[in-house]
Amino acid sequence: MKQLFDGSVVLNPVPVVVVTSRNSEGKQNAFTVAWAGTVCSDPPMLSIAIRPSRLSYEYIKETMEFVVNIPNIFQVRETDYCGVISGRDEDKIKNLGFTYKKSHHIDAPYIEEFPINIECKVKEIIHLGVHDLFLAEVVGSSINKNLIDENGKIHFERANLMCYAHGEYYPMTKKSIGKFGFSIAKNLELINKYKHIKSYKEYLNERENPKKLKKRKKKK
Amino acid sequence: MKQLFDGSVVLNPVPVVVVTSRNSEGKQNAFTVAWAGTVCSDPPMLSIAIRPSRLSYEYIKETMEFVVNIPNIFQVRETDYCGVISGRDEDKIKNLGFTYKKSHHIDAPYIEEFPINIECKVKEIIHLGVHDLFLAEVVGSSINKNLIDENGKIHFERANLMCYAHGEYYPMTKKSIGKFGFSIAKNLELINKYKHIKSYKEYLNERENPKKLKKRKKKK
Repeated sequence: MKQLFDGSVVLNPVPVVVVTSRNSEGKQNAFTVAWAGTVCSDPPMLSIAIRPSRLSYEYIKETMEFVVNIPNIFQVRETDYCGVISGRDEDKIKNLGFTYKKSHHIDAPYIEEFPINIECKVKEIIHLGVHDLFLAEVVGSSINKNLIDENGKIHFERANLMCYAHGEYYPMTKKSIGKFGFSIAKNLELINKYKHIKSYKEYLNERENPKKLKKRKKKK
Repeated sequence: MKQLFDGSVVLNPVPVVVVTSRNSEGKQNAFTVAWAGTVCSDPPMLSIAIRPSRLSYEYIKETMEFVVNIPNIFQVRETDYCGVISGRDEDKIKNLGFTYKKSHHIDAPYIEEFPINIECKVKEIIHLGVHDLFLAEVVGSSINKNLIDENGKIHFERANLMCYAHGEYYPMTKKSIGKFGFSIAKNLELINKYKHIKSYKEYLNERENPKKLKKRKKKK
């Protein structure tokens, strides 16, 4: 049974990121954004939605640059703080004891303590309503070395990332429950890695027949 | 220490949704999208990025409508399948034993089995590169009743949602690690709920002084 709702976007979970920027006078600010998303693979582009009342809106509109910093679960208090305090009142990054660092491709700084930093140049600003959408090209990223193995593969499962759903922060588990393409995989390694992951039909069957399942378990 | 990367968007985690549409001849299709995001709170709007080669691109461009269906972790095999098989070759929803249902506000159908269904009308299509970005207004949502309490509050933590990071599907935990505003909360209930969540400085201190921590634990 379903219930109908109006008037809000119930897309969940979403990423939660801290966006850093620097205005033309060199003033820097950081603020938290949950309305962020990848919008194109090539050229690599992402979007962030910002209310015009935000200080960062002014800074980014002026310089057309920003950095998307991805925090980990150990930084959830700091991430929240950057979302509820205004840069007009406080120097948030200084108060947190965090560090602005010079970016590699743009003048907007990144935050050293956050494990992933994505440097972006704004291509277009679209007025939508209470938020304006900033479409930006990714010009480079820096990632903590402990997340990268000897073959250069990035291990996001080691990063302790979190997501945001309906006003709350949640950690991801460390173990994935599937990999793109695993549902039709012919590669034995991939099949075996996820063979414990049931189909929805199997899940429903087991949920509806818990006795059968218990019996089978007992026999073992 | 950081390592530099170029050429891709490493924004993680992102939502993973199944988008349904219906063309003017009444043909229906479902496909999986990871490049989705909220873009405006009022009017409620979201975006999805689609490659023009996709069958759903044709359908949605024709009717300017789609539904964003949010799957749960028990539907990860089905979600993956909808992302790797083309609707040109197979009727994916029929093959899965899932059900197209008539939407309440638009002609594009939703999938009954997915717990959350967001009905959308496209406002603008922006060509970016290999993906086009579809900006759409949310005209209504249907949500499984077991996710809604007697006061009408939606409990996403009961929904067993998943997210997507770097090609793999991950479950969210059921327990949140913070709520928007908790870092500066004055409300005692909120303070107490998350008092076990450390600041980053406390986390680093404990990590760097594990002996101290052990000693303290032993004393107890």
